[in-house]
Amino acid sequence: MSELTNRCYRLRNRPERLVTDDVLELVEEPVPAIGPGQALARTRYLSLDPSNRIWMSEARSYLPPVPIGDVMRGIGICEVIESERDDIKPGDFVTGFSGWQEYVVVDDADEFPLTVLPAPLPAPAPALLGPLGHTGITAYLGIEDIADLKPGETMVVSAAAGAVGSVAAQIGKARGARVVGLAGSDDKCKHLVDQFGLDACVNYKAKDWREQLDAATPDGIDVDFENAGGEIMDHVLRRINLGARIVLCGMISQYTSYGDGDGPAGQREIAQLIMRRATMRGFLVLDHADRFPEAIEYLAGLLAKGQLQYDETIVEGLENAPQALNDMFSGANIGKLLIKVS
Amino acid sequence: MSELTNRCYRLRNRPERLVTDDVLELVEEPVPAIGPGQALARTRYLSLDPSNRIWMSEARSYLPPVPIGDVMRGIGICEVIESERDDIKPGDFVTGFSGWQEYVVVDDADEFPLTVLPAPLPAPAPALLGPLGHTGITAYLGIEDIADLKPGETMVVSAAAGAVGSVAAQIGKARGARVVGLAGSDDKCKHLVDQFGLDACVNYKAKDWREQLDAATPDGIDVDFENAGGEIMDHVLRRINLGARIVLCGMISQYTSYGDGDGPAGQREIAQLIMRRATMRGFLVLDHADRFPEAIEYLAGLLAKGQLQYDETIVEGLENAPQALNDMFSGANIGKLLIKVS
Repeated sequence: MSELTNRCYRLRNRPERLVTDDVLELVEEPVPAIGPGQALARTRYLSLDPSNRIWMSEARSYLPPVPIGDVMRGIGICEVIESERDDIKPGDFVTGFSGWQEYVVVDDADEFPLTVLPAPLPAPAPALLGPLGHTGITAYLGIEDIADLKPGETMVVSAAAGAVGSVAAQIGKARGARVVGLAGSDDKCKHLVDQFGLDACVNYKAKDWREQLDAATPDGIDVDFENAGGEIMDHVLRRINLGARIVLCGMISQYTSYGDGDGPAGQREIAQLIMRRATMRGFLVLDHADRFPEAIEYLAGLLAKGQLQYDETIVEGLENAPQALNDMFSGANIGKLLIKVS
Repeated sequence: MSELTNRCYRLRNRPERLVTDDVLELVEEPVPAIGPGQALARTRYLSLDPSNRIWMSEARSYLPPVPIGDVMRGIGICEVIESERDDIKPGDFVTGFSGWQEYVVVDDADEFPLTVLPAPLPAPAPALLGPLGHTGITAYLGIEDIADLKPGETMVVSAAAGAVGSVAAQIGKARGARVVGLAGSDDKCKHLVDQFGLDACVNYKAKDWREQLDAATPDGIDVDFENAGGEIMDHVLRRINLGARIVLCGMISQYTSYGDGDGPAGQREIAQLIMRRATMRGFLVLDHADRFPEAIEYLAGLLAKGQLQYDETIVEGLENAPQALNDMFSGANIGKLLIKVS
């Protein structure tokens, strides 16, 4: 296969705030020939996630920083085009840490081996990175394991138009909670209320977003499904009820300051956890591979019943991945952000 | 009893940072005559706690702010001098929210009725506000209910020379953990290691305190018994292990900024809870009155075995309470800080 050329992004420098041109280099390299026990797959879709930005930095994360010079880490769904493995044949799909590249060698000796998906695919490939992939499973686990959400309680979801937030909000509705979202535009908010059934949604770019959030949560907040951090989270903490649960899923407002000497401004209202005897817990989907089948069954069930809808923002071409990632931090996308690589 | 004069501190203004002269006024008032169902007690000791400063402010807390004009809220131990109740006689001791005053009317109709202590007192009165009172019980509950501390694990305790911290640290030792304290002077640290048996203690006023804490926690941190907040907590969060537990007992570094428009600088490392799948939980001793007997039995047992020692800083005279409280925020006291009122 040496006639094939792999385009890939290699990490050259760690970002200070957004991903500037010097951070990633788009490199053309020959695709390596595969050997026994290996297969070669072509990336179809690449998932862009807030954590991509963390991995570029030297911040202490759940995975080591991407070493300078390595192919950028990322989760993709890829189609096998050549195989020297008995268990994989061309046309099969694999998913996992395939990286920001057009071709990937499938090798079980890798630190994070790719997973072979059933054939035919149970859903369109993008959905397997979205509501039926790590995105949806994250939302499910956060609510199932941490939120202890009861019917009639109020759950707030930040970044509610985002990939994880929009699924979490709908799971909350399916469980009988009052769900209030926060999103970055009036259009997103209207969409979440009208199409996804949220009880209310506040545009956090509005001047009076705090008053709007107060009005939308007249009985306080029992569960915070937190994807944003920063001032939004602080205001939510000011309104939590006794015994509230904070599902700490992400803090996207903080990530672009990794690498900046000043770091994020910080959360000013953590002491409210004492005042309200509340619990905040962080979690990570990668810890719970054994529960993916349970999660996927639940999510597929919601999809089938029409209780789970999802948005996708699909950007064409690997070369647009850095800009698309930057745009995510300003809230340009809605729902799952994907790169269609091939 | 109208010939008696009650000296009390009334709240006149909310503080901006420390308690300045305009915040509290020392007032002389006639002691009210008691009626049926009431008793009159004379305050012996007043407990000073970081939460006093919170209650002076308008910060959202677990109790409403002290109304302007009211006697300052505080926990004391008082001796009954006159009674029109069958269940209380002169010479009995009562404890609870007796306030910053020399005389208190004991009345079960109060929002927080005082508790009658057994006679004779099971320990010296100051100890009943310290290791055998709400202070020690707070430490016990934090470790019993939240820390899930296992032998051999590393627990860090901030404000370890303080009233709660010093008890928490010794409970940690009794449970077989490696316990590392943070305190505000070399003398305090030496005392905690030599007398109280901590494995290590770091003076957080030393320039290289971060490096010292790193060296003292070579296996990372499994439990953080947090009394301080601020930069200390942030650095602890950078070192927590997978599945760490943060017992959020207090954030004394933040409290003197309640009232200040800028507020505390904020915690920059909350995202580490995600990275390390950690849990942070706030709690309050007042919620668990049903468990005080269990806690006191445990603490008394440690005392009897010599596994629990305690320090007291006793300041004479109610008139010195505001300054003593201010001094607490700069770490002037060691162990339990009490005002000997009479």
